[in-house]
Amino acid sequence: MLDHLRRYLPVLDWGRQYNRHALSNDLIAAVIVTIMLIPQSLAYALLAGLPPEAGIYASIAPILLYAVFGTSRALAVGPVAVVSLLTASAIGQVAEQGTAGYAVAALTLAMLSGGILVLMGLLRLGFLANVLSHPVIAGFITASGILIAASQLKHILGVEAHGHTLPEIVMSLLSHLDQTNWITLVIGVAATGFLFAVRRYLKRALLAIALPPLLADILTKAGPVLAVVGTTVAVWGLNLDDAGVRIVGEVPQSLPPLTLPSFAPDLIAALIVPALLISIIGFVESVSVAQTLAAKKRQRIDPDQELIGLGAANLGAAFTGGYPVTGGFARSVVNFDAGAETPAAGAFTAVGLAVAAVALTPLVFYLPNATLAATIIVAVLSLVDLTILQKTWAYSRADFAAVAVTILLTLGLGVEIGVASGVLISVLLHLYKTSRPHVAEVGRVPGTEHFRNIHRHDVETDPGLVTLRIDESLYFANARFLEDLVQKRVTEGCAIRNVVLMFSAVNAVDYSALESLEAVNHRLKDMGVGLHLSEVKGPVMDRLKRSHFLDELNGRVFLSQHDAWAALAGSGGGA
Amino acid sequence: MLDHLRRYLPVLDWGRQYNRHALSNDLIAAVIVTIMLIPQSLAYALLAGLPPEAGIYASIAPILLYAVFGTSRALAVGPVAVVSLLTASAIGQVAEQGTAGYAVAALTLAMLSGGILVLMGLLRLGFLANVLSHPVIAGFITASGILIAASQLKHILGVEAHGHTLPEIVMSLLSHLDQTNWITLVIGVAATGFLFAVRRYLKRALLAIALPPLLADILTKAGPVLAVVGTTVAVWGLNLDDAGVRIVGEVPQSLPPLTLPSFAPDLIAALIVPALLISIIGFVESVSVAQTLAAKKRQRIDPDQELIGLGAANLGAAFTGGYPVTGGFARSVVNFDAGAETPAAGAFTAVGLAVAAVALTPLVFYLPNATLAATIIVAVLSLVDLTILQKTWAYSRADFAAVAVTILLTLGLGVEIGVASGVLISVLLHLYKTSRPHVAEVGRVPGTEHFRNIHRHDVETDPGLVTLRIDESLYFANARFLEDLVQKRVTEGCAIRNVVLMFSAVNAVDYSALESLEAVNHRLKDMGVGLHLSEVKGPVMDRLKRSHFLDELNGRVFLSQHDAWAALAGSGGGA
Repeated sequence: MLDHLRRYLPVLDWGRQYNRHALSNDLIAAVIVTIMLIPQSLAYALLAGLPPEAGIYASIAPILLYAVFGTSRALAVGPVAVVSLLTASAIGQVAEQGTAGYAVAALTLAMLSGGILVLMGLLRLGFLANVLSHPVIAGFITASGILIAASQLKHILGVEAHGHTLPEIVMSLLSHLDQTNWITLVIGVAATGFLFAVRRYLKRALLAIALPPLLADILTKAGPVLAVVGTTVAVWGLNLDDAGVRIVGEVPQSLPPLTLPSFAPDLIAALIVPALLISIIGFVESVSVAQTLAAKKRQRIDPDQELIGLGAANLGAAFTGGYPVTGGFARSVVNFDAGAETPAAGAFTAVGLAVAAVALTPLVFYLPNATLAATIIVAVLSLVDLTILQKTWAYSRADFAAVAVTILLTLGLGVEIGVASGVLISVLLHLYKTSRPHVAEVGRVPGTEHFRNIHRHDVETDPGLVTLRIDESLYFANARFLEDLVQKRVTEGCAIRNVVLMFSAVNAVDYSALESLEAVNHRLKDMGVGLHLSEVKGPVMDRLKRSHFLDELNGRVFLSQHDAWAALAGSGGGA
Repeated sequence: MLDHLRRYLPVLDWGRQYNRHALSNDLIAAVIVTIMLIPQSLAYALLAGLPPEAGIYASIAPILLYAVFGTSRALAVGPVAVVSLLTASAIGQVAEQGTAGYAVAALTLAMLSGGILVLMGLLRLGFLANVLSHPVIAGFITASGILIAASQLKHILGVEAHGHTLPEIVMSLLSHLDQTNWITLVIGVAATGFLFAVRRYLKRALLAIALPPLLADILTKAGPVLAVVGTTVAVWGLNLDDAGVRIVGEVPQSLPPLTLPSFAPDLIAALIVPALLISIIGFVESVSVAQTLAAKKRQRIDPDQELIGLGAANLGAAFTGGYPVTGGFARSVVNFDAGAETPAAGAFTAVGLAVAAVALTPLVFYLPNATLAATIIVAVLSLVDLTILQKTWAYSRADFAAVAVTILLTLGLGVEIGVASGVLISVLLHLYKTSRPHVAEVGRVPGTEHFRNIHRHDVETDPGLVTLRIDESLYFANARFLEDLVQKRVTEGCAIRNVVLMFSAVNAVDYSALESLEAVNHRLKDMGVGLHLSEVKGPVMDRLKRSHFLDELNGRVFLSQHDAWAALAGSGGGA
């Protein structure tokens, strides 16, 4: 019973060993992450089209719930760039931005996503994430980064613009270019330049003046906070908001409110596919980060329990004014580097953010949207990695095709079509590759019991006997290939009296392949040719025995290929 | 050049050897098939919701074109039950039955389907048909048979009814039951009973009175013609059409007209997915029939050229007043059994049908629709095979799930959702199965160079060394499994210093798996554990060399597992 509880509540594991040392490490990490998360949470809410507080709320309850149910010691859960983009894309189709319906749709999306994740965890369906191949994920993340950066340019320019695809966004920006607010542009460009400089040079500079690495790190991570403070003070001091600079404005001073997602069937039907997509993409990203960090301390995470942890976090977001969340790469790395030892660091971060939500929100009244946009642009451009195109091109054309299709369609037709097409093409390419397995025609190495490819080795063959070694499990994608192959080979040689299929590398035979074997058997029987099997593995044999195939086989099953040769060679041609 | 032409025009092959003997055999077969096809063509047109002549037109030009481009000697191309149902379902969504738009949509569907098939043939994309596993096809055909039979009951009852799913059809029939036309019902039931009796008993009875088998066969196949003649005469003689019995009515006396499908982008967009479905299902059915018949004469068919043959047939249908066609099972078997030797038999059948279209159509004026419905019901119920549920249950639960989902969803939600779900679940189950490949931890059989599963054999192991033999190619679906597995195994034992992955059964490593290997390598490096490979196959090694993996490998690649053991065993634990 307790074991069962501990499986679903990892907190019972690490909580019992919690001590003063871990506490102080977790506290330090929490302070650093909180400083980093305040501007980031506001920014991602902006990206999702939600009011700024939604980003902070989405970081509080979810972090606490993940701390209870999650298995990673260092993962920091909250709003992330790609999921925010997916959220904007999904709920933009069902509600108008800025309306109450929009916020409710975001809650509903979080609830659905949480429900799907918990369900997948309970049913141990984590394998569903495997439909996303690495090239598809890499292509999708890169294209999303480009889309997100492009979508933020309107805040830098201070204009209105819309669109969910790159051509739409670019056309919309160009058509509004004449309305550019020059003061906003100056703020935006300055903030972006500052953040890039901090990211690229500050840490190195600080280390050069002999600051301790941890302090240098904290100061670097505080870059966005400096940009926020600097531009907020500038807007406030110079009354730039009167000159048309858009600012964050009033943010309620409150703990996360209790909210209720919608259970309207129409809305759920419209959001269920995007929710599935968000769940799977969020899960894959999160698990990769968690696994990388766990390995550094020789710990491990349990992917099925991770589903439950992330699901609980999303359900938490749904009922406390948030929107879909997942484990973020940047914040988790910061958390880890800052010394977080247990999920308690996350709980302390949540407390820090709650304090910020109650006490600090008036301070961001004059914060310009352009600064938040700059934060997002700098963060997401680090996700853009077009070298994946080169790397996959060098390694395998099929993988390159998957990346290229995913990037082009995500940019050109939007995130949902992009990732769906990427998955489709990966699966089709896999089916294509395995639909033509390697098959070798083998003969006997003279004087031995070894059988080798007749095209590579000097081996004995028999005109009445054809032996085909199949180097792949047989299943629906290659069942027809097998039929075609045998028929082709047998119609080539009129002297052929027996065909042996050598099953040494066949790990499984599904029902489609069974029916193909039956068809091959009947066709060979019609031609007066015997069909035999050799070296069939135990589990495959057990399964074949459940069908009538072995009863109807127009030939025998030989334990070894040598037995088959001994029985059939020489009996052919002349028969 | 000539070889190239002959590849795309199989007629050049068999045409040169054509002789008097083949001619007489082909002529006899053509007469029998023509007699069978006249009622069948009218009936399937009714099923597709088209005027009766469309069925005859769809049998003329397509047969001629297939004779030129197809590779099967016995395949008879034309309207078939399942494709007629798919046609009705597809064009019912874009046009009202009975309107000119409906007929044009049918032509457009045939054109798209023909275009897709030819394109797949030229690009050698026949493998796409492999996404349909046998259980999905069997489930789909069975459910379609039930749906078709149910949809024809309205003609037997003489009522109006609609619907594309079983519940819809049944509810619609029940709500119109009070309008049953009793005379129609008598005709329908009598015709159905007669046709069942002919199919089941007539041939046996005729053989019992010592008729020659061929004649007995012709008479049996003429059963539908007898039913047509009998009921037509009854309606005409007794003026039953005045009593509300629906009849075929006027059918134009004409050769197939030249028609033009629509090129409207909207219509094409709406029909492209159904056209793809019709193409793939038609192709799979047709190739299975063709392959079975070819094997009986030790001939073979070329699946890629079959795509071109069927594509040409559909393009022909699109421009001559037809609708989508494919190779039919029943008619091809009749053609084969009647002695057809070459595709010329098909050409003669086309001539016979053309004569019928010009001369005989007035004779079917009084033919009751109920008789045609009876023909369809008797034909499709032979397709219904629910034993597939038992067979797959006994053989493999995964295949059973695919059949059951396909049958239930086809009946409950319609043909398109049914077959799409079937394909989806087959692919997911395959990914699931291969996402957890068999992996054995191996040790050395004492005193030898053999390495076997430590759980099955009494072997030597080393506390500092873990060797995992992976019995499957590595690709995106099992890439994460590999990461989890290695991490789990290594975090279990603190003494582990080296991990060897034995690649003897790995035939391929895709880019996802490469990245997983890189991740495993980095994580093990972080833990201070070496990663080594052994027995890597040539092609896999060549591909790995195209990446940086081997340069970064925190360990070595050993030619044999024995080399790895010799180098690493004993160096572990204490290191």
